[in-house]
Parts: sequence; structure tokens; C-alpha cells
Amino acid sequence: MTTPPKPLIGRDTRLCMSLSARPSNFGTRFHNRLYERCGLDYVYKAFTTTDLPAAIGGIRALGIRGCAISMPFKEAVIPLLDRLEGSAAAIDSVNTIVNDDGRLTGYNTDYSAVRTLVEQAGIDPAARVMLRGSGGMGKAVATALRDAGLTDGVIVARNAERGQALAASVGWRWAAEVAAERADLLANVTPLGMEGADADALAFPAETIATAGIVLDAVALPPDTPLLRAARAAGKTVITGAAIGTLQALEQFVLYTGVTPTPEQVADAERVARG
Amino acid sequence: MTTPPKPLIGRDTRLCMSLSARPSNFGTRFHNRLYERCGLDYVYKAFTTTDLPAAIGGIRALGIRGCAISMPFKEAVIPLLDRLEGSAAAIDSVNTIVNDDGRLTGYNTDYSAVRTLVEQAGIDPAARVMLRGSGGMGKAVATALRDAGLTDGVIVARNAERGQALAASVGWRWAAEVAAERADLLANVTPLGMEGADADALAFPAETIATAGIVLDAVALPPDTPLLRAARAAGKTVITGAAIGTLQALEQFVLYTGVTPTPEQVADAERVARG
Repeated sequence: MTTPPKPLIGRDTRLCMSLSARPSNFGTRFHNRLYERCGLDYVYKAFTTTDLPAAIGGIRALGIRGCAISMPFKEAVIPLLDRLEGSAAAIDSVNTIVNDDGRLTGYNTDYSAVRTLVEQAGIDPAARVMLRGSGGMGKAVATALRDAGLTDGVIVARNAERGQALAASVGWRWAAEVAAERADLLANVTPLGMEGADADALAFPAETIATAGIVLDAVALPPDTPLLRAARAAGKTVITGAAIGTLQALEQFVLYTGVTPTPEQVADAERVARG
Repeated sequence: MTTPPKPLIGRDTRLCMSLSARPSNFGTRFHNRLYERCGLDYVYKAFTTTDLPAAIGGIRALGIRGCAISMPFKEAVIPLLDRLEGSAAAIDSVNTIVNDDGRLTGYNTDYSAVRTLVEQAGIDPAARVMLRGSGGMGKAVATALRDAGLTDGVIVARNAERGQALAASVGWRWAAEVAAERADLLANVTPLGMEGADADALAFPAETIATAGIVLDAVALPPDTPLLRAARAAGKTVITGAAIGTLQALEQFVLYTGVTPTPEQVADAERVARG
């Protein structure tokens, strides 16, 4: 297999970037590897900022082609944009900006990636969802599931105000704790199982996992959480945080470049980015 | 000779850039080649803008380490900075911004490069200068020559207002046309000899060139102008626009990175950048 040579960076090279409080290396490595493999004259770089309006003004003034938006800027960035694409408008959260000649459009590729993965998993519209969490990513996942046709669900969240608000926005019920009830699709959108203090925590008890057909864990680090291990051991279909992270980054890549890489190129870039 | 490997672009990679109406590839190639040869975790990219204040605000907000400033932004950028270094303040013209944690300092490395090259050429303080031109670069060159100790000079410029103002600012005389008089140092800071309509024009007549010891031509493209050819043929010491361009870019590199490359590394980067 031949790889086109990566052009030298020159005056026509396009810059894409990310903005977050604590940049990781995933996006920078993923995008730059795909630019190289696809022979595209682009370069990608992660940034942080303490002045979001000036940073977004700089994206517009410098013609930076695209920008990934992470915590804590996903909602604050909205008034600084010219237009929201449907997914971002539905959940009031932007994780992607595309700059067309100074006109900035906000997208949410977390939403679209979750929706795509759930639809690929072949979910029954009558399936009942139990989703744990009520933060920004919880809203993206719940809305994607609802828009994929899942109208029967419960939001489990200790924070009653946020849990009830999210439940109302997707038309599901709210519960403070995981109850002993059947759920066909389990979704963890809390830090339970994430690297750090909660690494050993199992987001749902084994008897709840036993009732499900599909288990989704939004935690991406580590790639293998207690929930995913338990779900795989019980023979369930899993949707991993790593898969969501890769697919949402791939959707950003396509929005920025107009180029759709091959599955082999994506797998290679994912290996490089997580390596 | 071993070259340290160029690090992959990651979250800690520092961005340097340029802003001009019509970006060239010289700076991008020169800096990126030196980053690679010196094993520095930096990347360089040329930009243009139609919104200078927002572009400078973006440099500050994104922590972009340095920015080369070209036409037509060298004076307009001054009120957007926090501080001017002496050379830039003396000529009211900035071609370099250094960003120290959000504090932007303006420099003029055209000025300092010319001053260094003239001092290296071993000029006698009693030498008489004839400088043709009255634009922004003319001011940088004239001030550098005056600050190198040359107090006897004439500014030749058809535009009487600008020519007289520049002559007054350095304490020299003004003339509308090249007169039949001796000049030890000739400096062309007009487009005469530059690629395009004036490519065949000789900035000073042969009899004036004959009186000089040193001939400076600020024109960088082509690297070999009619004036430089005539001066070399007459056995004069020459200071070329290409040499000024390389040295001013090298001074920017040192300001941005704190690293001084070897002369061999600089020559290599110059070859790559002009190739």
C-alpha cells in the first residue's frame, strides 16, 4: 500500500486545532496522522486559553479551518458562533467549529457519533434505556438515543434538578438511584470507572447488566472499564468510550477536510493516537 | 553529523506564525527546517488576515509564541502590543512579535539585521551614505546605518515629503534624484531590480557605483539584481536583500526559541527555504 507524501508546511497549509482547559494528545495525533496518510496539506495543534472570545475571534481572523471544543467551553462558545447545526442546537452544546471563510458553524459530533453507533448496534425502538449521568455528555448521549427512536428511558442522577431537567428534555423518567428494573440499553455517562479515584467503580450492578442487550460506557480512559469488562463477560454488545471518541474525531476530520478516510486508515490513526 | 529527531506535534508543541497580506513560503520553510534540525518542539505557519486586532487578540489568547509581521501591518500593529523594544520604537515599525505569557513585545529584526551586516562589513564612521527609497524598509535601513555611526548621508526620494521626513529623522540631507557625487555606501531600498516590471532597472548609475566601497540592495527577489551584479563586477563589498532576509529571520528564530543554530544549520535552512 502506498501513502501519498505529506506536503511540507507552507503558506497554503490549513490549520485545525482544539481548545480545552487541559489538552490531551489524542486529537493532535489522530488528525495529523490522517492528514499524512491521506496526503492532505493540513496541520493540527491543541491549544488552551483563558480568553475564549479572543480565541474564537482569532480562529475567524486567521482563517483556522476547524476547532474541537472540549470542557469547559462547550456551552460558553455558542454566542460566539454564527450558526448552530441541528445536533448542537438540540443539546445546546458544541464540540466542533467549522470555519467557512469567517462564518463559524457549531456542530456536536459526540451526539452524532453516539447516534451512529447505537443505530449500527441494531437497537429495537421499543428498548428501554437506563442512562446514568446528567452532565453535558449525558445530554448528548440521551438526546442521541431519544433521536435514534428510544422513547422509553430513565435518567439516573443524584442531582435531582439536573436529572429531572435532562429527563424532561428527552421525555424520559428520572430516578435518584439505580433501581432493580429491566433495561435493554445501559449507558454510563458518569466518571465511574474512569482513571483515578473511581477506576474500580462499576457503574451498574451485575443483575442490571444481566437484563441488558447493549451496554454503552462513555468513559474513554482507560479503554477497558469495570462496566465494559462485566458487559463483555456477560456476552453483551458494547459501545465503548474509545469508539465514541474515535468516531466523533473522524466526523470532525470529514467536516474539516471533506475527505473520508478508509477504515484501515482510521484504525491506523487510532492506534497512533492512543499509543 | 546527527540530527535530533523532530518530535511529533503534540499538546506542548509551540506555534509560531507570520501575518502578511500575501504570505510567502520563506519563513515557514526556514523556521520549520531549523526546528527539525535543532530538535525543537515548535511548528511554524504563515497566515493572512482582514482583521488585524482580532488576529493579534488570537495570538495572545492562544499563546502563539511569536509572529512575523509583514506589509501592510508593520505600523498598524503597534497600538495592539504591550511594549516596543528599542529598535521598533525608534522606527515606529514592528516586524516581529514575541509573546511572553500574554505580554506582547514588538521588535524590528530588519533594523537589527542591517545594522549587524553593516558592522560586519567594517564600515568607516566617516563614510558617506546614499540611500534610495523612503518607505518603511527605507526607514529601517537608514536608521540602522545612522545607529551604526554613519552621520553623513543623503536620502534620495522623488516623494519630497517622505524623503525630507526620513532625512530629518536620521539627520541626513535629502535629494529628489541621484546626483553626481561620491558615496562610500550605496543602499537601494526601492523596488528597482525587483522581480516584475522593474526587474531590469539599475538603482544607481555605474559612475556612482564606482565611487562606493559597499553596496546594499534590500531587494530579496531575485537574489541577484542588476545593482548587485554591477557592484560585484566592480569588485565592491555587497550586502544582499537575501542576506538581510535570512539574518532577520534567524534573529526571530532566536527570539522565539532561545536557541542559536550553527552557521551550517542556518545555511541549510536558507537553502531549503529558497529552494
